[in-house]
Amino acid sequence: MIGGGVAPPGKLSDMRELYVIGIGAGDPQQVTVQAIKAMRKVDTFFVIGKGAEKQELVDVRTGILEEFLDRPYRIVEIADPPRERTPTDYSGVVGDWHDARSELLEAEFARVDGVGAILVWGDPSLYDSTLRVVDRVLARGLVRFDYQVIPGVTSAQALAARHRMVLHRVGEPVHVTTGRRLREEGLGDGSTLVMLDGECAFTQVPQEDVHIWWGAYLGMPDETLIEGPLGDVAEEIVRRRTKLRADKGWIMDIYLLRR
Amino acid sequence: MIGGGVAPPGKLSDMRELYVIGIGAGDPQQVTVQAIKAMRKVDTFFVIGKGAEKQELVDVRTGILEEFLDRPYRIVEIADPPRERTPTDYSGVVGDWHDARSELLEAEFARVDGVGAILVWGDPSLYDSTLRVVDRVLARGLVRFDYQVIPGVTSAQALAARHRMVLHRVGEPVHVTTGRRLREEGLGDGSTLVMLDGECAFTQVPQEDVHIWWGAYLGMPDETLIEGPLGDVAEEIVRRRTKLRADKGWIMDIYLLRR
Repeated sequence: MIGGGVAPPGKLSDMRELYVIGIGAGDPQQVTVQAIKAMRKVDTFFVIGKGAEKQELVDVRTGILEEFLDRPYRIVEIADPPRERTPTDYSGVVGDWHDARSELLEAEFARVDGVGAILVWGDPSLYDSTLRVVDRVLARGLVRFDYQVIPGVTSAQALAARHRMVLHRVGEPVHVTTGRRLREEGLGDGSTLVMLDGECAFTQVPQEDVHIWWGAYLGMPDETLIEGPLGDVAEEIVRRRTKLRADKGWIMDIYLLRR
Repeated sequence: MIGGGVAPPGKLSDMRELYVIGIGAGDPQQVTVQAIKAMRKVDTFFVIGKGAEKQELVDVRTGILEEFLDRPYRIVEIADPPRERTPTDYSGVVGDWHDARSELLEAEFARVDGVGAILVWGDPSLYDSTLRVVDRVLARGLVRFDYQVIPGVTSAQALAARHRMVLHRVGEPVHVTTGRRLREEGLGDGSTLVMLDGECAFTQVPQEDVHIWWGAYLGMPDETLIEGPLGDVAEEIVRRRTKLRADKGWIMDIYLLRR
């Protein structure tokens, strides 16, 4: 149970609608017309992860709001609950963290009127927890509201666009996975797109006959692209990635591997 | 070798730049600001597949141009070369067809001045041949030009948004594949997103403990969504799909399967 501000069970929140909006991979111009129209109806933007987010990303998001919005809005920042970084029970720990986030969000939803929104980098359907957290708020039933998801351009599309490539060979599949999974399961056939890889898992797969297309800070001023046979460029990517991350204090990157 | 209008070898085309622009899955509002800005620089839009495309899709695209463009532009329609529909050598036939398309496109590129563009439904990186065809034009070297890809919202993102779902379970992968592959390879673990399925391949996988999220005409007036346990809803999807396709003369659909 959480403290003050929680609505009575089943109360229809005065927040009558929530938009979860994909805003693209980092280039403010990647926002869609649909996203802009939704943002223009919003009274309160909820920002989860207060303090944890890098200033440059906060600035991009603020820039999107300032460029495209034509009415007053409020931003409510919600501090992120602590999370164990290297859990042994990964999905259990993530589940607890989603619960803690949803309780914080629920308390804020109960406090505000009108239309709320949460902006999500890329698209909410890939490696983002927002929809899971909102579903938990709704499942508890303490506040009720309508909600809509506005799709956005993912970093997968941004990577492919910058390398001017198709993500798969003709008629073949593409496997979208995480660095953790790539380390655990190895590289399959065909094309593998890797997101959420903090530890260069591409160095831990056999390099022979594998090509890599890598991109960091896609659509942002520090965008960096490297592609080539994995054996030739893996070291360069690790070196560039380590330096960029050290210089800037953070990195967002993604890559495609293909045999 | 093709007829008149082909530039001499190596000639820098008067078409100095080509944009390949993802315009979203069917909702005209899904176009990005970046796409609109690119379209506003374009002198000539190339439409491949003259006559083959359904009038409703032509109308959506025309609507996008009329709504967002503020200067005159030309549309050049290019008839599609014939293609064997049920080839035994799939990638060989597709390769020949890409060659034929690229020759037609090359001849048009050699004829126009200024900035050209090809608009692509969804995003050019997933199950679309435009980039492969453009690469073939460049590889032949008869015309040269700069080109840029502008990413768009895919039908995968549109499907997930309308079902308000994440495409994968926490920390798990999602496999993006075709109906043909699903029939040949069966359903793997985790989440499988199926595109390009003209023949309801979901009816040919074991249905026990599998859930489906299906969507057709996403973002368009006839948008239709069905989700549920595969065993319960497979028949309904086949029935609705057959009727919609018969009534309208065409269908675009996509679905996610998850054990």
